[in-house]
Amino acid sequence: MTISRRVLALAGGVGGAKLVAGLAALLGEQLTVLVNTGDDFEHLGLHVSPDLDTVVYTLAGIANPATGWAIVDETWTFMDQIERLGGPTWFRLGDRDLATHIVRTERLRRGDTLSAITADICRAFNLGPTVLPMTDDPVRTIIHSGEETIAFQDYFVRQKCAPPVSALSFAGAAAARVNPRLDGLQRDDPPLAIILCPSNPWLSVAPILAVPGVRSRLKELGAPIIAVSPIVGGRAIKGPTAKIMGELGLEPSATTVAQHYAGLIDALIIDDADAASADAIAALGIAVRTAQTVMRTMADRVALARACLDFAGVLANRTA
Amino acid sequence: MTISRRVLALAGGVGGAKLVAGLAALLGEQLTVLVNTGDDFEHLGLHVSPDLDTVVYTLAGIANPATGWAIVDETWTFMDQIERLGGPTWFRLGDRDLATHIVRTERLRRGDTLSAITADICRAFNLGPTVLPMTDDPVRTIIHSGEETIAFQDYFVRQKCAPPVSALSFAGAAAARVNPRLDGLQRDDPPLAIILCPSNPWLSVAPILAVPGVRSRLKELGAPIIAVSPIVGGRAIKGPTAKIMGELGLEPSATTVAQHYAGLIDALIIDDADAASADAIAALGIAVRTAQTVMRTMADRVALARACLDFAGVLANRTA
Repeated sequence: MTISRRVLALAGGVGGAKLVAGLAALLGEQLTVLVNTGDDFEHLGLHVSPDLDTVVYTLAGIANPATGWAIVDETWTFMDQIERLGGPTWFRLGDRDLATHIVRTERLRRGDTLSAITADICRAFNLGPTVLPMTDDPVRTIIHSGEETIAFQDYFVRQKCAPPVSALSFAGAAAARVNPRLDGLQRDDPPLAIILCPSNPWLSVAPILAVPGVRSRLKELGAPIIAVSPIVGGRAIKGPTAKIMGELGLEPSATTVAQHYAGLIDALIIDDADAASADAIAALGIAVRTAQTVMRTMADRVALARACLDFAGVLANRTA
Repeated sequence: MTISRRVLALAGGVGGAKLVAGLAALLGEQLTVLVNTGDDFEHLGLHVSPDLDTVVYTLAGIANPATGWAIVDETWTFMDQIERLGGPTWFRLGDRDLATHIVRTERLRRGDTLSAITADICRAFNLGPTVLPMTDDPVRTIIHSGEETIAFQDYFVRQKCAPPVSALSFAGAAAARVNPRLDGLQRDDPPLAIILCPSNPWLSVAPILAVPGVRSRLKELGAPIIAVSPIVGGRAIKGPTAKIMGELGLEPSATTVAQHYAGLIDALIIDDADAASADAIAALGIAVRTAQTVMRTMADRVALARACLDFAGVLANRTA
């Protein structure tokens, strides 16, 4: 199969980046990735964009395979010294990773956009795909835990997702403008498919969809919208997705993911282990296929990417 | 000899820091160092204070003995990545050193003073001496080379002191307020001696003396002011001092250093190699002694420090 049409993927961090890597292996420059920036925060005066960096480092082949985030063969001399100086050590910035944050922070202060900076970083790594922050405006994911509000990285890294989540909000989202490249995509190169990667739908994909105009633009692109469920056999492959679903009063299942995305997606790919949920999902008017969604190897990533694109081809023919 | 009285040293970078280390070995907490910040600059969005850091790292025992500046056993992963990202590499920031710049920059942006930040860094390193930036206000040393004006680090590091110096100026100095601790020193603990370390008189000591009120306050402290000549046998031990003197139309000699400081200093320590200049210097009304001023070992540093303090004791008795 040769792909000659553009594909748009929406992704958060580690889980999403794995499928993005598989898609990139098949699509190269035909892939555009719209990435969550709700996790962005300022730390030690530096603008850190964890999801953008995870996607870029994964595509550059320098992500640490053991963690999914951070850079392989990273050194930690800076953090040792920060500790000696009595600075905060709960969020660990590697020496190599620091270069990204420092270059980005300086350019943001000079007035460059996050999009322009990200494009230059991708160019430095010779990436084929286009990586777009969802917006150039500040959006911050906020965790509500009862009466308490917690900034995302504080919740996710410092508190290791321990506080029970009662609600989520995305500060700044209402005023944020969607990445203008999304409009260019529609005009110049309407995609074959839109793929919601298996990132946490509540923490990682929701901020992207909370930017005004994203949902309508995705619909207007006219391509089938396919999500990949991050829930396998009632559990999250990684991270707090299932825990949060339970705390929000939702059953952790592929069907719940389908219900969450209903109205937006045309299709859902669920894991082979969840085949029994296929009928319930189809009853929501969502086309469904099963696949091996747990990606342990690069071959797994490419196979799942191929399953997404095959499914998109079928769906596109069906509506054509 | 037990020193129970405070000593104030004025210092720039590497040469000055060596004598500061010798003084610290004898004086411990009784030493206060007023450090040049005219070399400070912003690089990659970070506030870098090269002379302050050289003094602090030297006192902390972590300065690289091969260079005098930078940290021993430093790693350079960050710079490798900056190069990969196409960033500037002419000013090299080590991974460990970065912690200082990042902590300082963040705190300056939050409104903390350079003095307060420096005090906390000294505390983290358990330093005995007090290290004071000459001012908390921005002063920037500017090199004039014919019609051209060059920022200090551009001249010193990027252009390796190649452009001929026709004049020097200290932008911001006229509006800068001297470090308020200097007044506290006068009130609470008048020093036994004031020592102008063998830093470049034109590049490193002049910016300190250019801050309004510094000269008069030094005089008011009532202690003998002793300089150590950075010129030995007509040459600078390190750096461009002799080259700059020549370009400014001055003969590179200990006598010229004495003429430069005349009116401020009471005494000058010159190298044994320059003993022949002693009479000419004495004729300026400046007391003079010879010593071994080239500091290759820690023992050399302590010996020169002891020579300074002995001389101060003699001078103080003479005026008492």
